Amino acid sequence: MDRTIEWRDGVVATIDQTKLPTRSVTIRLNNVVGVAKAISTMKMRGAPLIGVASAYGLALTAFHSKARTRKQLMKELEASGRLLVSTRPTAVNLRWAVDRIISKAKLIDDRDSLALFVVKEARTIAEEDYQANLAIGHYGATLIKNGDTVLTHCNAGALATAGYGTALGVIRAAVQAGKKITVIASETRPLLQGARLTAYELLKSRIPVTVITDNAVGHVMQMGIIDKIVVGADRILSTGHVFNKIGTYGLSILAKAHGVPLYVAAPTSTIDMVSTLKSVKIEERAASEVQYICGVRVVPRGVKILNPAFDITPPENVEAIVTENGLAFRPYTESLQTLVSSKSVA
Amino acid sequence: MDRTIEWRDGVVATIDQTKLPTRSVTIRLNNVVGVAKAISTMKMRGAPLIGVASAYGLALTAFHSKARTRKQLMKELEASGRLLVSTRPTAVNLRWAVDRIISKAKLIDDRDSLALFVVKEARTIAEEDYQANLAIGHYGATLIKNGDTVLTHCNAGALATAGYGTALGVIRAAVQAGKKITVIASETRPLLQGARLTAYELLKSRIPVTVITDNAVGHVMQMGIIDKIVVGADRILSTGHVFNKIGTYGLSILAKAHGVPLYVAAPTSTIDMVSTLKSVKIEERAASEVQYICGVRVVPRGVKILNPAFDITPPENVEAIVTENGLAFRPYTESLQTLVSSKSVA
Repeated sequence: MDRTIEWRDGVVATIDQTKLPTRSVTIRLNNVVGVAKAISTMKMRGAPLIGVASAYGLALTAFHSKARTRKQLMKELEASGRLLVSTRPTAVNLRWAVDRIISKAKLIDDRDSLALFVVKEARTIAEEDYQANLAIGHYGATLIKNGDTVLTHCNAGALATAGYGTALGVIRAAVQAGKKITVIASETRPLLQGARLTAYELLKSRIPVTVITDNAVGHVMQMGIIDKIVVGADRILSTGHVFNKIGTYGLSILAKAHGVPLYVAAPTSTIDMVSTLKSVKIEERAASEVQYICGVRVVPRGVKILNPAFDITPPENVEAIVTENGLAFRPYTESLQTLVSSKSVA
Repeated sequence: MDRTIEWRDGVVATIDQTKLPTRSVTIRLNNVVGVAKAISTMKMRGAPLIGVASAYGLALTAFHSKARTRKQLMKELEASGRLLVSTRPTAVNLRWAVDRIISKAKLIDDRDSLALFVVKEARTIAEEDYQANLAIGHYGATLIKNGDTVLTHCNAGALATAGYGTALGVIRAAVQAGKKITVIASETRPLLQGARLTAYELLKSRIPVTVITDNAVGHVMQMGIIDKIVVGADRILSTGHVFNKIGTYGLSILAKAHGVPLYVAAPTSTIDMVSTLKSVKIEERAASEVQYICGVRVVPRGVKILNPAFDITPPENVEAIVTENGLAFRPYTESLQTLVSSKSVA
């Protein structure tokens, strides 16, 4: 569980997250199409992880390419990049990883050096993501008190990243600092990442966790059980607007109504200083995710479905954003700019 | 679908709601134990329906009793009443129906007249509930405008009552009055009454319905799609506090934050003028409802579950309460008293 995705001589190994928690199945991918498919079918999910996976997708193209010229290889890489970015429109980390590799690759004028560089850069991106999670944990743990009960939504854990986790990284670091923490995980329909993945990770790490339905979130806040909320993010705008798993926005309104602080934990690769609220597309996923659960039809045929994968939490509902470069507070237009420009001081 | 539960010469016939929407299976019950079991396993659910079912449970005891004396029959009825009331602690309609029959039964001093009375009174309760739903629809429809998109949670429809429905009765009556209404149904985990039952009912009645996950409720309100919210209730206190399906409280906070009115539709048999917030037990249902979906384990073994079936919506989040005797507005301490004391003017 230390690293969620690994590069082994031209093969990318990761766990099929759709099979958890009942089965732990390792999948091995050796081309970009396989990586893109694993992302679009949610075998790999989590904004940081699919960023890293995209980097490795390009690495697979570079490693196995039969291109004879630099120009041809570059074309293959660009096609691979487009395929990867098209898999999921909301999480910005995909585009970030692809852009980073492609833009640097353009500066290399030799075919073999280019191929080697892409593999090396992908491995660097993976390692940086892992280290970023440790740093996020380091900064985020300062927000969590001994004895806190922390609610988290979806899975922003080791399984959503190269390892350790963003939101769950904050919880892990607090626990490692000797604090006693209890976690409440909302199950997170439609794909149940909270029930399946967050519960699985925390159980393995022996951090006490209780699963509730998404409907019970208001009730547990009303009961005064929740001290803090920590979630991840799929994209954060320069204004501090947070695109994250559907349900996060509702959670943020409830948090505000009950005076419970909501923290967002994400690497700076999730911060998009360019896009605007209107320019980001919220992915609408297949109706079948709602119509069927575990293969059983639960919505009658002929009934319409709306299945947005993400929602937008406005900055006023976010108490702090935790990155590998430190904490950002409101106004985010200033604090995020500073963090994105700075190097980590961890 | 006109009547959800029927008495036919010593047999109670109803639909097994756990099998919907894929299969429509009629169950026939001929003793109180069968009725109690059907209620506790959610084959019958919905506060008004389980009130009517409890009345019929007593009727089955009376109809088939081998008791020779009035005293012995009364004892059997009281034991049946205790069994029925014990099945589910939160919905008050169970207790209401049992108390109504038992208290009147006590005034009858002949064994056979007593047995006949219980059956007749149970049938009266069922018919009154059906008529109450029509009246609720009549009053509630005045709150709904042509073109409205109405969100409802769980199932407060024909299937939750003797027929027609409370929240869905309001929508039906608005549609019958010629208004064009679109319904958004939240799926309502853990038992998916929104996805399975509300969608099924509305589809049959040709009222446009879209199902969303409970997580998407905040998002659709943020998008400005929702004009009104109508839900049912399992118990309403004299203060206007509403016990209803888990998730309703969160919905009410979201409604308030977005300026969307939330209406509660319920017969006066749901109003409990005696109990206090602290004296009402919120039913905690089996962990397995969250651990398994359609028989497939989704939460790893060893993880704790919290599964409250209901939550409490405070009166300040409820725009109006719709009963068969008319509408109640804040302050509910006054308006509910008036409605409970009055006869229907419908």
